[in-house]
Amino acid sequence: MTRPASTSVTVLGLGSMGTALARAFLAAGHTVTVWNRTAAKAAPLTAEGAQSAATAADAVAASPLVVACLTGYDETRQLLEPVTATLAGRTLVALNSGTPAAARGFAAWAGDHGIGYLDGAVKDVPGAVGQAGTLLYYAGAADVFAEHEATLRALGGDTVLLGDEPDLAKFYESAVGTALLPALVGFFAGAAAGRTRGIAAGDLVPYAVRWMEMIAAILPGFAAEIDARDYREGASSVNLFLAGADWDVEFARDAKVDHTWLQPLHDLVRKAAAAGHGEDSIAALTEVLGAP
Amino acid sequence: MTRPASTSVTVLGLGSMGTALARAFLAAGHTVTVWNRTAAKAAPLTAEGAQSAATAADAVAASPLVVACLTGYDETRQLLEPVTATLAGRTLVALNSGTPAAARGFAAWAGDHGIGYLDGAVKDVPGAVGQAGTLLYYAGAADVFAEHEATLRALGGDTVLLGDEPDLAKFYESAVGTALLPALVGFFAGAAAGRTRGIAAGDLVPYAVRWMEMIAAILPGFAAEIDARDYREGASSVNLFLAGADWDVEFARDAKVDHTWLQPLHDLVRKAAAAGHGEDSIAALTEVLGAP
Ligand SMILES: NC(=O)c1ccc[n+]([C@@H]2O[C@H](COP(=O)([O-])OP(=O)(O)OC[C@H]3O[C@@H](n4cnc5c(N)ncnc54)[C@H](OP(=O)(O)O)[C@@H]3O)[C@@H](O)[C@H]2O)c1
Ligand SMILES: NC(=O)c1ccc[n+]([C@@H]2O[C@H](COP(=O)([O-])OP(=O)(O)OC[C@H]3O[C@@H](n4cnc5c(N)ncnc54)[C@H](OP(=O)(O)O)[C@@H]3O)[C@@H](O)[C@H]2O)c1
Repeated sequence: MTRPASTSVTVLGLGSMGTALARAFLAAGHTVTVWNRTAAKAAPLTAEGAQSAATAADAVAASPLVVACLTGYDETRQLLEPVTATLAGRTLVALNSGTPAAARGFAAWAGDHGIGYLDGAVKDVPGAVGQAGTLLYYAGAADVFAEHEATLRALGGDTVLLGDEPDLAKFYESAVGTALLPALVGFFAGAAAGRTRGIAAGDLVPYAVRWMEMIAAILPGFAAEIDARDYREGASSVNLFLAGADWDVEFARDAKVDHTWLQPLHDLVRKAAAAGHGEDSIAALTEVLGAP
Repeated sequence: MTRPASTSVTVLGLGSMGTALARAFLAAGHTVTVWNRTAAKAAPLTAEGAQSAATAADAVAASPLVVACLTGYDETRQLLEPVTATLAGRTLVALNSGTPAAARGFAAWAGDHGIGYLDGAVKDVPGAVGQAGTLLYYAGAADVFAEHEATLRALGGDTVLLGDEPDLAKFYESAVGTALLPALVGFFAGAAAGRTRGIAAGDLVPYAVRWMEMIAAILPGFAAEIDARDYREGASSVNLFLAGADWDVEFARDAKVDHTWLQPLHDLVRKAAAAGHGEDSIAALTEVLGAP
């Protein structure tokens, strides 16, 4: 990969993620202007070579490319509403999380003000920003993306444009991201159980990591079943999970770990079995979830 | 790895998993005797060189090593109760799922009958059995494991003895496995949402796979926080997930996908925030889960 010519970039919002973004732009040799509501958070970055702007308006005026990483769209819009005239003709990239509906609304607002806009999502933790394997995906106009792709690639080597529908990044993020909290709660519940037995979370980790990799490896097969709407050949059946449901609850109860959160998941399995999917692949839950 | 000397192995139970186990033993050059309640399931294996026993008693008598893969412990015990005299002095390996409590009970029963016993867990799908990277872990006496380790390694190259407490394999399996159903439901819900937008599950898969890999990569950090009971330095806070909760629900509602199963997970996040963990790492949920 050839290093992009050094350009000027502004980063608004210096929370965990915004700080990581600014640092990655600095590491790639760009001129970086930063601004944060709580000004003190800019100090570590200015020590590393960033320019600190006194106001958001100054920060926006400093660069043709403005990356915002505030909590959400509402906060970002509120911050930028007074400086739309300065933003017009520049490119704004919002990397906060949010819903597809909010992304559509924000993109329309940017368009109304003549602001070139890319909506993006960082698909990793702040510590991974700037690495070759780190994924960020974007939604927006192909020409705007092409203009800034090399610069944005400083944030992660796996930088992808999903398409020009303005909510695609947030749609993918929401659809794929739905698995995060449930998977983590599963891990934390296992760790809480291990504690009662003198087994450290660190002892479970090698196996939990293998388990997540195993889950990743079986997703393509499930996806093929879902897209074909044919669940007859699955190796792991709804009935297998039905048998496991009682064991999960018994295990958690014995270990005195909260298991009430498992109940609705088990109800979905029961609902799939009741709908005649007992011998089918567990991927048949997709049909039950899609018809509430 | 040197190939173990060919030995005789009996496999009881020829469901999806038992069939895969028998096939892996055959592929490793062992003399394999099989038995299944529904006899027809033995046919593909006898065509591949296995011996089919007419009764479970005959099957047990055929080999010094007997691997059982029925639905659960109750079924296995019921099947083997009449043949304990034949089993005495041989080694029995149960590879079904179940709870730690059931594993303890089953191991005690085997011990009472002078049966050498290993309790095991196949940590992968049937299609992965026999591969170099496939994980199986066992609990039981070190000498019994050592005697059969080379033979058992035919089922997966990553074959581990966790320790001699007889329920350890099921404890690890339950603790680690708790994440499976929640993670899958998350993926299926995302796929159901994608469908409403004309996005195939197959389109989501590359990103979902990356997402699971990302989750795997952050588990060691969470485990360190959990073991230190110090959640102050986490990059992904409880408050971040709190903000995401409403978005998850809004996304699912817009896509007309069931989201009721998310409610108790979000309640856990709220409970952690209410307990003062708002700015702490999401791993602080472990404390909330362990004190129901
Ligand atoms: N951390 C992660 O693991 C991660 C991963 C992927 C995506 N994200 C997304 O990235 C975004 C930022 O996350 P983060 O972890 O950096 O959050 P954070 O550490 O809580 O930082 C939030 C940032 O937003 C600013 N902010 C909030 N409300 C504001 C307002 N009304 N006006 C001006 N500034 C405001 C905060 O400024 P103050 O410092 O003044 O409060 C701070 O800079 C979120 O949408 C998050 O979902 C985070
Ligand atoms: N499939 C997987 O992905 C997977 C992965 C890891 C672990 N496991 C575990 O492996 C075990 C078997 O799973 P599987 O997928 O092979 O299940 P399966 O396809 O449903 O097969 C169940 C087996 O148990 C036998 N069986 C049930 N009740 C019996 C009884 N009362 N007497 C005699 N035989 C009886 C069945 O015989 P019939 O053919 O006569 O019904 C069949 O051979 C389970 O504990 C499961 O949790 C499975």
